[in-house]
Amino acid sequence: MDIGSILGLIMGFAFVAAAIMMHGSLTDFVDVPGAMVAFGGSTSAILIAFPMHKVLSIFGIVKHVFLNWGPDPREEIKRFCEYAALARRDGLLGLEKQLQSVKDPFLKRGLEMVIDNTPHDKLEEVLHIELHGLEERHALGKKIFDQLGAMLPAFGMVGTLIGLIQMLHELDDPSKIGAGMAVAMVTTFYGAFVANMVYLPLANKLEARSKEEVKVRELMIHGLVALLEGEGPRAVEAKLNAFLAPKARKGIQTSEAAAAA
Amino acid sequence: MDIGSILGLIMGFAFVAAAIMMHGSLTDFVDVPGAMVAFGGSTSAILIAFPMHKVLSIFGIVKHVFLNWGPDPREEIKRFCEYAALARRDGLLGLEKQLQSVKDPFLKRGLEMVIDNTPHDKLEEVLHIELHGLEERHALGKKIFDQLGAMLPAFGMVGTLIGLIQMLHELDDPSKIGAGMAVAMVTTFYGAFVANMVYLPLANKLEARSKEEVKVRELMIHGLVALLEGEGPRAVEAKLNAFLAPKARKGIQTSEAAAAA
Amino acid sequence: MDIGSILGLIMGFAFVAAAIMMHGSLTDFVDVPGAMVAFGGSTSAILIAFPMHKVLSIFGIVKHVFLNWGPDPREEIKRFCEYAALARRDGLLGLEKQLQSVKDPFLKRGLEMVIDNTPHDKLEEVLHIELHGLEERHALGKKIFDQLGAMLPAFGMVGTLIGLIQMLHELDDPSKIGAGMAVAMVTTFYGAFVANMVYLPLANKLEARSKEEVKVRELMIHGLVALLEGEGPRAVEAKLNAFLAPKARKGIQTSEAAAAA
Amino acid sequence: MDIGSILGLIMGFAFVAAAIMMHGSLTDFVDVPGAMVAFGGSTSAILIAFPMHKVLSIFGIVKHVFLNWGPDPREEIKRFCEYAALARRDGLLGLEKQLQSVKDPFLKRGLEMVIDNTPHDKLEEVLHIELHGLEERHALGKKIFDQLGAMLPAFGMVGTLIGLIQMLHELDDPSKIGAGMAVAMVTTFYGAFVANMVYLPLANKLEARSKEEVKVRELMIHGLVALLEGEGPRAVEAKLNAFLAPKARKGIQTSEAAAAA
Amino acid sequence: MDIGSILGLIMGFAFVAAAIMMHGSLTDFVDVPGAMVAFGGSTSAILIAFPMHKVLSIFGIVKHVFLNWGPDPREEIKRFCEYAALARRDGLLGLEKQLQSVKDPFLKRGLEMVIDNTPHDKLEEVLHIELHGLEERHALGKKIFDQLGAMLPAFGMVGTLIGLIQMLHELDDPSKIGAGMAVAMVTTFYGAFVANMVYLPLANKLEARSKEEVKVRELMIHGLVALLEGEGPRAVEAKLNAFLAPKARKGIQTSEAAAAA
Repeated sequence: MDIGSILGLIMGFAFVAAAIMMHGSLTDFVDVPGAMVAFGGSTSAILIAFPMHKVLSIFGIVKHVFLNWGPDPREEIKRFCEYAALARRDGLLGLEKQLQSVKDPFLKRGLEMVIDNTPHDKLEEVLHIELHGLEERHALGKKIFDQLGAMLPAFGMVGTLIGLIQMLHELDDPSKIGAGMAVAMVTTFYGAFVANMVYLPLANKLEARSKEEVKVRELMIHGLVALLEGEGPRAVEAKLNAFLAPKARKGIQTSEAAAAA
Repeated sequence: MDIGSILGLIMGFAFVAAAIMMHGSLTDFVDVPGAMVAFGGSTSAILIAFPMHKVLSIFGIVKHVFLNWGPDPREEIKRFCEYAALARRDGLLGLEKQLQSVKDPFLKRGLEMVIDNTPHDKLEEVLHIELHGLEERHALGKKIFDQLGAMLPAFGMVGTLIGLIQMLHELDDPSKIGAGMAVAMVTTFYGAFVANMVYLPLANKLEARSKEEVKVRELMIHGLVALLEGEGPRAVEAKLNAFLAPKARKGIQTSEAAAAA
Repeated sequence: MDIGSILGLIMGFAFVAAAIMMHGSLTDFVDVPGAMVAFGGSTSAILIAFPMHKVLSIFGIVKHVFLNWGPDPREEIKRFCEYAALARRDGLLGLEKQLQSVKDPFLKRGLEMVIDNTPHDKLEEVLHIELHGLEERHALGKKIFDQLGAMLPAFGMVGTLIGLIQMLHELDDPSKIGAGMAVAMVTTFYGAFVANMVYLPLANKLEARSKEEVKVRELMIHGLVALLEGEGPRAVEAKLNAFLAPKARKGIQTSEAAAAA
Repeated sequence: MDIGSILGLIMGFAFVAAAIMMHGSLTDFVDVPGAMVAFGGSTSAILIAFPMHKVLSIFGIVKHVFLNWGPDPREEIKRFCEYAALARRDGLLGLEKQLQSVKDPFLKRGLEMVIDNTPHDKLEEVLHIELHGLEERHALGKKIFDQLGAMLPAFGMVGTLIGLIQMLHELDDPSKIGAGMAVAMVTTFYGAFVANMVYLPLANKLEARSKEEVKVRELMIHGLVALLEGEGPRAVEAKLNAFLAPKARKGIQTSEAAAAA
Repeated sequence: MDIGSILGLIMGFAFVAAAIMMHGSLTDFVDVPGAMVAFGGSTSAILIAFPMHKVLSIFGIVKHVFLNWGPDPREEIKRFCEYAALARRDGLLGLEKQLQSVKDPFLKRGLEMVIDNTPHDKLEEVLHIELHGLEERHALGKKIFDQLGAMLPAFGMVGTLIGLIQMLHELDDPSKIGAGMAVAMVTTFYGAFVANMVYLPLANKLEARSKEEVKVRELMIHGLVALLEGEGPRAVEAKLNAFLAPKARKGIQTSEAAAAA
């Protein structure tokens, strides 16, 4: 669960809604034809811009990235230390019982290859191909959100142009000008608000999350190779710690020292 | 046939037309001189910006990319497995009968070279030159659409400026102001709507399609080399599967397992 | 002669002039002080931005690129085949008589070096330095046009600001507002129209032409090296055909087949 | 202490406040709902765009970079010369007493490794990993400020749109139009002023500072390696001077010459 | 002296001043608080964005680049030919007398190293470090001007927003609207005019000049190495001519031929 995103979304909508309600009502900002142009138009443009199965795959990517958030690197280091201890005692086949409790398909595939005693380079090659595919899928997700963030304000402007042109044709009745312009501008508001509050920040987070997930998967590959090479728990931990920031590293060492005490 | 693009285009125009008709009529958005400036001007600028034969070649590229959409990688893998079986049984010359049923000129040229027993490196060199030319032609198509997407809003603004300047010269009759401004803004509408609904998304799709087609053509080159090397159907399949995403790969394995059952 | 550019320029101006004359007269779009700000200001900025002799050299580059358009690759391939036949019959010195009919200084210099039997690497080095200089001069031409295309709209806006500020100081007489604003906006029109119709497309064409010319000059270098190596007409043709797109290649082969028939 | 930034901030706010007070009062520029949209909205978007712990870490980075500004390269060269003299006299262990006076954790870690006689390549590897982490954290800080600088004007515009739409709904009372529009535009003012006065310049300074700090840390690594290699004070100084600009270098040499005189 | 820049500046200001005076007076364009916001604000932002000593160093860079413009490559080639002749006759020490007439510190340092018979690679290394520092200082100068060119229009807009907000608060007196808006827009005029007429073109020229100076300095390094290697005047000239454009080269050869005649 990604608390920052949810907090940000709630806060952002709350600030804007509160500001609106201080001087008027939210209903001034509802306009069905405008929403059709802004959201319908930009979504249609995305369908043209990207192959359909890739547009549809974005929901899966988003769900995966924001809900089932990737494994904690510190947990993974602990896990590999345990596996290393197990492998020392019972051999690589001793890991076979652990296989059922592993849910992450990437790690599972890697462990199976370790148990089958696959050579290092083969294991690394296969897992790096998987990892590269993952990166490409995440990059596409980011690109689609970036395009949505560019298209929505554009179609918001298209909607405002439609509203203004229609209002100008009815200029004879000056009492309608204000309301007409207000409605016309609501579409620009949709584009500016949703693109900057939702699409563009999500594109950014997707990129940051992808980098973090890739880093943990690379840690896993190093851990699996260490298991294959029969390294002990201490050596595995020293090796994998290089993937952590200095502060995170200290955290582990301290808890370890505490455990040793 | 590219369903996503057609669906997107229909949906996009439908959303905008529906939004317009909720408050007025489509005829408010027809302006012949404005269309001359926006579409005529931007097309003229493209004629200056790119060599003429390249501007004309864009229709061919678009038709090729959107209608005769490139071969399915899974079909091609199947085809190469069959060819490999044939070549095992009857030798490379056994492929000669297949040549007539191959319509894709790239694949046909490759197969001819395989039948002539052309050395690997020569075959790869010739086909990569072809592939590189294809990529360049696609990239130019994308660039022309990108420029159209930049020029159309610019000339839309030029049209609006013309309309506003003419309206301001007739300010004496205030009853004409509204209609004059409405007409002036229609040109901006043309630029913003068509560039974002048609040109820019098509430029994007062209790029995505080009990448997919290039990937399949690279699969073909690997397949042709495997035929030259006399590999069996299983080895060919294993080799070419690396070009598929994990999910697509599973699909083939499952259907194979089903066939084996 | 570059028909596309001339056609595009005529069409572009015609479309805009026709659209203007449908509703008013071209004289509404003449404003001397505005033109001084837009064209005078942007040209002055270019004088500051680039060394003076380079700004002046742009006329030569443009004339060279648009009028004396570079040699046709197919003609050049034919020419090298003839030279190769000549050299076979009469030796490299036999090319000496051809030297007078060659007007292109790049080719002339190359041929002289071939006749002097200059070593390959020396010939290639000298001609590549020339070619690199050519590319740099073309790139600078493009950059100056790009900057003009950015500066003209900026000074167009400056002119409009001047007009608006002056108009606002005379607001007491409301009958002058319309004409004042109209005049003010003409400068923005100059910037948007001329930049998008002339400067930016010319920058683009310059780049495309430069790429084509460089390609032909590289073909020439390969042809000259082939002459030095004493290759026959058939070998020369096969070698240089690699520089043509598949379609262009077929054209030559067909005409050859026709000639052989 | 970074005097330039503090001076710039004070001057910038003073210029703008003085300009405002020449024609009116600062209270015209206070708008609570507008501030909620502009500052609240952009901050919320940043929370979505970046992982939460990274958003929070920005305060530490800013404080570190602007207050405890990194060590002076000339001081560090002097320090390494002294250490080199000490090491010559008392051996590497003689540096142990100096360790307590070193506060910079990067340098401290390096000195400890020198005293432990860690091999060169190991010392360089460990410290470069630390340095790379530092660079990445600074780059992220810059990116967050850049995004704030892009988001704040966007949400400023959202706030203005809200204000305009609400004002247009109350057009019946023309006396309120002016005040309504004034309030609406205050949000755009917040976005344009704070982004250009605070966020974007800070992003720039962060980058410049990061480059300077990284350069000093690289100087330190070279100095530590020189200590390990047992080089004398003169050799150490000659080596490290390469990190200084010519003028700065002269400064040291002059003071040295003065000391020698 | 850089005539192009001075001519461009005079012409640009003349065009704009003339256009203004055709319809009004220059005093309409004077606004003290607006200038404080636009120029004061943007300068303050630059103080925050760059380390203070670098902002101050910009005056030196500009003076150096625009007034004491770098040496003429043709003069330098002549000089090195003379030095080569001298060195042939009297040995490297014969150059010692020339040292006093050399004012350029870069060349002086190089000559001193030649007289000291410094090895090639050492001489090249030292001078390239100097050259790299020069390039970095020029690049920073360009970056500061680019940022000024971006900040000035931004603060121009801030000034206009301030003016508009204050005007809208006094809407009760309609006779003041025009003058109020005029004053507000003057700040935008400052930003658009000065950024496009001064800052951005200077940034461009700085870059072009820097490239030219670096080229001459590289020519010097090659010349110094040739002196070290004891090459004769003809060989030195042939070597250094490669740094000139073909036309410039011809100029030298012609004058030489004339001298020989």
